[in-house]
Amino acid sequence: MQKKTAVVWKKGECSLADAKQDTKGITVKKSDDMAEWYGQVVVKSEIADYSSIRGFIIMRPNSYSIWEKIQAEFNAKIKKQRVRNAYFPLLIPESFFSKEAEHAKGFSPEVAWLEQKEGDHERYAIRPTSETIIYDSYARWIRSWRDLPLRLNQWCNIVRWEVKDTKAFLRGREFLWQEGHCVYETEKECKKETLLYLEYYRQVIEELLAVPVLVGRKTESERFAGAVRTLAIESLMPDGKALQMGTSHDLGQGFAKSFSISYLGKDGQMQLPWQNSWGFSTRTIGALIMTHGDEKGLVLPPRAAEHKLAIIPILFEASKTQTLLAARSLAKQLKRFNPILDDREEYSAGWKFNEYELTGIPLRIELGPKDIEKQSVMLVRRDTGEKRSVPIAQLADEIRKTLDEMQHALFDKAKKAMMERIVTVTDWDAFLAADKQGKMMLAAHCGNAECEQEIKETTKGITTRCIPFKGEKPTAACVRCQKKAKYNVYFARAY
Amino acid sequence: MQKKTAVVWKKGECSLADAKQDTKGITVKKSDDMAEWYGQVVVKSEIADYSSIRGFIIMRPNSYSIWEKIQAEFNAKIKKQRVRNAYFPLLIPESFFSKEAEHAKGFSPEVAWLEQKEGDHERYAIRPTSETIIYDSYARWIRSWRDLPLRLNQWCNIVRWEVKDTKAFLRGREFLWQEGHCVYETEKECKKETLLYLEYYRQVIEELLAVPVLVGRKTESERFAGAVRTLAIESLMPDGKALQMGTSHDLGQGFAKSFSISYLGKDGQMQLPWQNSWGFSTRTIGALIMTHGDEKGLVLPPRAAEHKLAIIPILFEASKTQTLLAARSLAKQLKRFNPILDDREEYSAGWKFNEYELTGIPLRIELGPKDIEKQSVMLVRRDTGEKRSVPIAQLADEIRKTLDEMQHALFDKAKKAMMERIVTVTDWDAFLAADKQGKMMLAAHCGNAECEQEIKETTKGITTRCIPFKGEKPTAACVRCQKKAKYNVYFARAY
Repeated sequence: MQKKTAVVWKKGECSLADAKQDTKGITVKKSDDMAEWYGQVVVKSEIADYSSIRGFIIMRPNSYSIWEKIQAEFNAKIKKQRVRNAYFPLLIPESFFSKEAEHAKGFSPEVAWLEQKEGDHERYAIRPTSETIIYDSYARWIRSWRDLPLRLNQWCNIVRWEVKDTKAFLRGREFLWQEGHCVYETEKECKKETLLYLEYYRQVIEELLAVPVLVGRKTESERFAGAVRTLAIESLMPDGKALQMGTSHDLGQGFAKSFSISYLGKDGQMQLPWQNSWGFSTRTIGALIMTHGDEKGLVLPPRAAEHKLAIIPILFEASKTQTLLAARSLAKQLKRFNPILDDREEYSAGWKFNEYELTGIPLRIELGPKDIEKQSVMLVRRDTGEKRSVPIAQLADEIRKTLDEMQHALFDKAKKAMMERIVTVTDWDAFLAADKQGKMMLAAHCGNAECEQEIKETTKGITTRCIPFKGEKPTAACVRCQKKAKYNVYFARAY
Repeated sequence: MQKKTAVVWKKGECSLADAKQDTKGITVKKSDDMAEWYGQVVVKSEIADYSSIRGFIIMRPNSYSIWEKIQAEFNAKIKKQRVRNAYFPLLIPESFFSKEAEHAKGFSPEVAWLEQKEGDHERYAIRPTSETIIYDSYARWIRSWRDLPLRLNQWCNIVRWEVKDTKAFLRGREFLWQEGHCVYETEKECKKETLLYLEYYRQVIEELLAVPVLVGRKTESERFAGAVRTLAIESLMPDGKALQMGTSHDLGQGFAKSFSISYLGKDGQMQLPWQNSWGFSTRTIGALIMTHGDEKGLVLPPRAAEHKLAIIPILFEASKTQTLLAARSLAKQLKRFNPILDDREEYSAGWKFNEYELTGIPLRIELGPKDIEKQSVMLVRRDTGEKRSVPIAQLADEIRKTLDEMQHALFDKAKKAMMERIVTVTDWDAFLAADKQGKMMLAAHCGNAECEQEIKETTKGITTRCIPFKGEKPTAACVRCQKKAKYNVYFARAY
């Protein structure tokens, strides 16, 4: 029989090696080395694992269950808006890419191609996004104003052959996402809904994942290949790096022209429709891990947690039977919180405490013979470590209240930390100083693409993140070139 | 502006052509030409569409919503059984296939490969099934008996580069499915659960989709590449062709050996675990279409239908406002049935009747001024066409009852039709005669693979479908070679 291989995580990357994963807990502080910390949390909390293929991770049940919650919450919102789910092909013919010139240019470097071809010539790409294959169908389906608005969404996998270092959830060669694709009669409807789907992202990310975000629009150089305007949800991670978590693109009529989508208008004339597309991905799970995790491991916001609590009976030989019985009855009583009852006798209570702290279960209930005597339990909160005795009669109410408090506390704490990391700067020295301190900079900019590129190159990586919807109007000159500014924009290094 | 292209369906295949889809209804009888009928229903009911890539279909919302119902129902069952959902990579390294020799041989002909390679040598396949990539992880994750049983499932897309004619839902180069992969300490648990997941398939297919099935095990020549034993769900379509709709494989310890999966047993010794894998796919939707559809189009079993009914106001100029008001109030009142309210004035009532018959909505409600006067509506059942006046006060109850009746009636009718198409034969002439009449044959067989192959070749395509769990014991000699029979088995041509 061969030796077992275990995943050994190395900073920024991962490789398989003949080694044991001996250390259970996290061995580095989040504030000391966030990249190392992140990699350890991902693997040790069993939220994900690296596979034998570079850039491809395995979403283990601990993360897939979060994705299922994101799906359920987002589906409920878009279904109310009459968006319907569908499924389009994984493959895209090469000729489709070239139809929209800017789009082709933007995606070509990272497309994975199939060996199999149609006939002798045309290659197939694995979808890096599905505008082209979907709009090929839309051109056939849309005939008259009666067919509009057309609102479809798909949940699927995406492949982008990244050449840079990959990182679980944050940058991978495969990820899961949803992509919505709508077609409208009027520009007004199109613009309105482009904004609406972005707002849904904000709601899901802030209210379910408790991750605070900034909303705004991308500068021209950062917009989606083929879009007129890209709206984005950005967050700021504890290491000062920005993370883009969702985008909604106003596509104008460009794709409609390239794909010959037209419809018979109410006026009896053939018309070009207006389109948007919008997507967010499993990247949001990376944001959740980085935002809330601590030295002990993962911290799950209660609403995103599959299991809201873990029940751990404290076992002594003399009272074992009674304690196990009480724990089982408690688990039944608290069924609505989908508790984990860990009644395994081969592990100590202390080992189990560590286990559920590592995996981020929001609440822990300890139940020993003394608690049973008092008809109470110890209730321990994952984020604060706060521990208190709660009478069993009030337990369900107390759990509900505590979960709710924890959900809000996590968001408030993260929001405060994010705001403290954003500084407004007006001159270049202050800009560089703030960057050195790991901050995000809000600054005025001339809007010139060359100036933006120059900033990126000089600083080796600072990019514009988004022009805020609120506070766009500049009150100073361009932070870099000192020419007249066009807007305020957030600058940061980014994942 | 370019001309619009429309999908023109051709028997067995599909091509895009510059043509209008002028004919709304189905133009051929199901009993006259089922292949042509099926293709028309699929496209015209807008349940799916062909894409520009051969063998890849688009699941439009009318079919994707059925898939979502199948997912919800199956997820509920497996989650009770403590199976957890996860997601594994789309790609599989070439070397993984070769680890299990039989498996590699079985899947190699239909694997799609990527141009991109790792380094200079190893190719990547798009998953045709995920045993190998999953068990590579299992080998790392499973260490002791405490890690067992391990039960994971994934919902994903699959690519198999079919060279034969493709057919929407039934045989495609890409399809959606779920695949479950469990690991156990004992052979007994493994065998028990292999059977359990098959039973879940039976329940979902019969109770949700109202498609009757046969359950049994595959002969050795028909079993999954790498399995010890394959259990299968088969149904019989109205044209006499069998359709395999779900399989559950007892993998024994073969993959465990090939992928070095082992665990420290309770006895302190390293042990080989036992495994199964099981899957069913969007093929089930093809079965639903073929089983229940009729001359007017699709017929959706109520439980599988996203919209249980369509409300159609009968509009006359004088009473239009009042009728529309009443229809809208009715739609609100019947919200729990997720009704379609078709209040478009640019289409006639007759046009709408055809539309919802074509798309298979279980019930239709007609509401005109005379109905409003009587405080009643006309309720029309899609499968029987039965039409009756129902007082609005009793409507919700009546709808619930009718939907329930329709669900059972569809199943009963399909079951009866299936049973009438199965004949027991004991000699070869009767076997051939039954095949000519489009029947499925239950016959005794010697169990010899060469004899089975010989039957397939002589008849140009008749294969064994499954050995029934009930009635396996043969009472006659082998229907072909007349040697001693080993079991009774269903024979049929198949999709």
